[in-house]
Amino acid sequence: MTDDYLHTWIGSSTAERITVAGRDLAADVMGSLTLTELAFLLVTHRVPTAGERRIVDAVLVSLADHGITPSSLAARLTYTGAPEAIQGAVAAGLLGAGSVFLGPAGDTAMFLAAALRDAAEAPPEDTAAARAVAESAVSGLLAAGHRVPGLGHPVHRDEDPRTLRLYALAREEGLLGPHLRLLRMVADVHEERTGRHLPINGAGAGGAALADVGFPPSSVRGVVLIARTAGLVAHLVEEAERPIGMPLWLEAERRASAAASDPP
Amino acid sequence: MTDDYLHTWIGSSTAERITVAGRDLAADVMGSLTLTELAFLLVTHRVPTAGERRIVDAVLVSLADHGITPSSLAARLTYTGAPEAIQGAVAAGLLGAGSVFLGPAGDTAMFLAAALRDAAEAPPEDTAAARAVAESAVSGLLAAGHRVPGLGHPVHRDEDPRTLRLYALAREEGLLGPHLRLLRMVADVHEERTGRHLPINGAGAGGAALADVGFPPSSVRGVVLIARTAGLVAHLVEEAERPIGMPLWLEAERRASAAASDPP
Amino acid sequence: MTDDYLHTWIGSSTAERITVAGRDLAADVMGSLTLTELAFLLVTHRVPTAGERRIVDAVLVSLADHGITPSSLAARLTYTGAPEAIQGAVAAGLLGAGSVFLGPAGDTAMFLAAALRDAAEAPPEDTAAARAVAESAVSGLLAAGHRVPGLGHPVHRDEDPRTLRLYALAREEGLLGPHLRLLRMVADVHEERTGRHLPINGAGAGGAALADVGFPPSSVRGVVLIARTAGLVAHLVEEAERPIGMPLWLEAERRASAAASDPP
Amino acid sequence: MTDDYLHTWIGSSTAERITVAGRDLAADVMGSLTLTELAFLLVTHRVPTAGERRIVDAVLVSLADHGITPSSLAARLTYTGAPEAIQGAVAAGLLGAGSVFLGPAGDTAMFLAAALRDAAEAPPEDTAAARAVAESAVSGLLAAGHRVPGLGHPVHRDEDPRTLRLYALAREEGLLGPHLRLLRMVADVHEERTGRHLPINGAGAGGAALADVGFPPSSVRGVVLIARTAGLVAHLVEEAERPIGMPLWLEAERRASAAASDPP
Repeated sequence: MTDDYLHTWIGSSTAERITVAGRDLAADVMGSLTLTELAFLLVTHRVPTAGERRIVDAVLVSLADHGITPSSLAARLTYTGAPEAIQGAVAAGLLGAGSVFLGPAGDTAMFLAAALRDAAEAPPEDTAAARAVAESAVSGLLAAGHRVPGLGHPVHRDEDPRTLRLYALAREEGLLGPHLRLLRMVADVHEERTGRHLPINGAGAGGAALADVGFPPSSVRGVVLIARTAGLVAHLVEEAERPIGMPLWLEAERRASAAASDPP
Repeated sequence: MTDDYLHTWIGSSTAERITVAGRDLAADVMGSLTLTELAFLLVTHRVPTAGERRIVDAVLVSLADHGITPSSLAARLTYTGAPEAIQGAVAAGLLGAGSVFLGPAGDTAMFLAAALRDAAEAPPEDTAAARAVAESAVSGLLAAGHRVPGLGHPVHRDEDPRTLRLYALAREEGLLGPHLRLLRMVADVHEERTGRHLPINGAGAGGAALADVGFPPSSVRGVVLIARTAGLVAHLVEEAERPIGMPLWLEAERRASAAASDPP
Repeated sequence: MTDDYLHTWIGSSTAERITVAGRDLAADVMGSLTLTELAFLLVTHRVPTAGERRIVDAVLVSLADHGITPSSLAARLTYTGAPEAIQGAVAAGLLGAGSVFLGPAGDTAMFLAAALRDAAEAPPEDTAAARAVAESAVSGLLAAGHRVPGLGHPVHRDEDPRTLRLYALAREEGLLGPHLRLLRMVADVHEERTGRHLPINGAGAGGAALADVGFPPSSVRGVVLIARTAGLVAHLVEEAERPIGMPLWLEAERRASAAASDPP
Repeated sequence: MTDDYLHTWIGSSTAERITVAGRDLAADVMGSLTLTELAFLLVTHRVPTAGERRIVDAVLVSLADHGITPSSLAARLTYTGAPEAIQGAVAAGLLGAGSVFLGPAGDTAMFLAAALRDAAEAPPEDTAAARAVAESAVSGLLAAGHRVPGLGHPVHRDEDPRTLRLYALAREEGLLGPHLRLLRMVADVHEERTGRHLPINGAGAGGAALADVGFPPSSVRGVVLIARTAGLVAHLVEEAERPIGMPLWLEAERRASAAASDPP
């Protein structure tokens, strides 16, 4: 029955043994790998080096949903109605990680990977060939009227503090690869072409960094959800102690009813 | 405006700076903390020791959804219909982490914490007082016709391999605390009372271990969702390459139609 | 293969024909049944009478999520982040339909049905026997420290306008059955025992009315979600034209950051 | 405060009165409008005629998720893990209503509306002008390598029985409008151009019919989710009585473990 479509490399179990990624879970994973390392292993099929692990963790902690976001508000408001089902509140928060928020990490990785694929080979740093790849990629998007993924942020209009730190860490670990390098060049070309400064945002830099350490670009949009889940869980633990959802609803309801009482 | 209900300790940002848990995200979190450590910090308000971190990671990797589960099947089938919205497929998988699967980790932590609260103080190991706490807790549940959380597993009927390993790791790190100790005693008392051997399952042991290293028991049900997200993302990356959802649907539809064609 | 567990009465299809609830979908359902009637048929296995249909529709329109609620806010905030996946925003809104909001419709139906089951038979209106059922049911809940489901509303403190109308409609259609009658008596008994007036809320009356026209009490919690989906879809169509989610986030973020800038 | 962004036309409430779509909910909606009519009113801002209502109901009952689908399987498997949170199981089922399943109803409505907007005016039936609109629309998609939305079905390869019935009903009610007429022409043009017969599928016909009776094309993708919720709730009521989720998981787990025991 080896040709049954119903099989997976991720894991399996018998009465005595649980196998994850081809390893014995109890003997060879528990106590040996961090959650970040296991995620890396499950998606890329190998264990990360110490440097790769540090970059991945830096990306994940940078995207764990700091502060008040539409996602964390949605999660908290869902908890207000169904505190007994915390998995539903986390799920509600994740559902907002789409094209506008968090999704751009994966979009950036895909965009950069496609541009690199179109070029003959990964461009060495700062050469004319690399520059041509960036120019071609940016031109294509602008001509089609699309935005360049990974650039711009509503709050961090000059520089996104996460981006500078991530480039520094990648350099420090010798892991500043073709995706991060191309993204920097894309930002420069974009500014020259449009006359507008749009900084590389944290989601874009994170997506490029994950691609550089070995995550398939198509996996990035999923991988960053792990980080977001951590942030959402923290919000919900806080919500249980000091609720925002209920007073926010009551304020919104009161203001909306006042507005509605006037003729449209 | 310091008394606005709309505030959070988790994070905030200005144009130049992002703060997470009161720290500068770029300078003091990225490159310094793993995702597991950040989750610990956000929920418990302190950074874990190396030993605590190792235990938390061991719990998380043990619960990351190995193999085919109702959750991973639901996520894969959702991906079949909406591959463009991977956050929806992850959310669908998380929604099955309720009272039957994964939820027992939090239920066990809550049950053990309540029993310890009822006792005058955390029982030292192996004493008559500790034993009395376990007996009282088990009696209360059995009298009410409830199951004891954390015991029993449909596949690992004799021993759950994750449990043995987790107890060994906790002992190794000097972190075998009152919740894990009480859970062991609860399992013994349950077997004496009912004559049935139910092993401590991985979810139950994980919940007890998280409580022992400092997670509020009420936070455990949420915390384990971080691990599950990692497992689900891995399943969806694999699903994109080698689909199970579509052939599973077609087989199920075919079999159901054959069954339905007969009179009821 | 008639004994395959994989079969369903709900529907099946072949290349030429789609069967729903044992009927030909194209010939006997489309153009003949409303969505409400199909939902009734699928859950109760029969087509409702005109009166039953009117009651069910009255319940559903009364619970379709009027105005600003935690559910509709969560759906709108989710749409802000992922406007390309409207199914995710609807799902986020539904996830808040738990123990606090909407869930009480099903809880009330279950509570009333259990009380009626405990009684020897469905009590005829206004007799001592009926009264005894209500007294026993209320006493049981109060003694256990539980709230009585179906009573009380944060906004409609005196009377819930939906309740009065629903009782009037049920009487008009000759469908004022044992659940609605018992609920009225439960509210009276509760007020006598506690000295506090808690009106029958719309969710509770709706749950009782659905049970009276033939929905299994355990199905009510699911059935009311159909109504909520209609309300959420309307909110999201409006959100696409005149957004609340984005300005709400920006206001909340600004207020939270101002609050966070002070020492805790 | 009439200029507060926090307001909605959908509904509001005071202690004595609930307003929905500008009407008194108790007096003018309950007992008067069906759920379908309320959904129509909330989205289009007017009450449908009897004929329009019949068409909308025909579309909704035709899309309520008959039989075993990826959506209904995902909902049932979610229920297996979290039977206490039925809103989560319904949400999981809805999350699969994306680009592959159900989403095409909205895609078809948007595609047809855009083609009609590009033409000078809505084409009268069977004229050369109308034909030119269809040819231009199909050519555009084929040239870009895209599929034509609303055509083709994996099971109903010759004709989708829902489509024929819907066209007949629309003709009967005098509501065969520009979207349905254009879709028919699009299917003809597609067959001539490609030599392949792809029938108009039920989702596509439904989307066109909803646009013809007045739903904004951008609302269609949301509106059909109301129908799907009804189908999913019916599946979950059946699942509670006769489970598919648990045996399906156990069979899948067993088969996957057998497959995994062989070397890769």
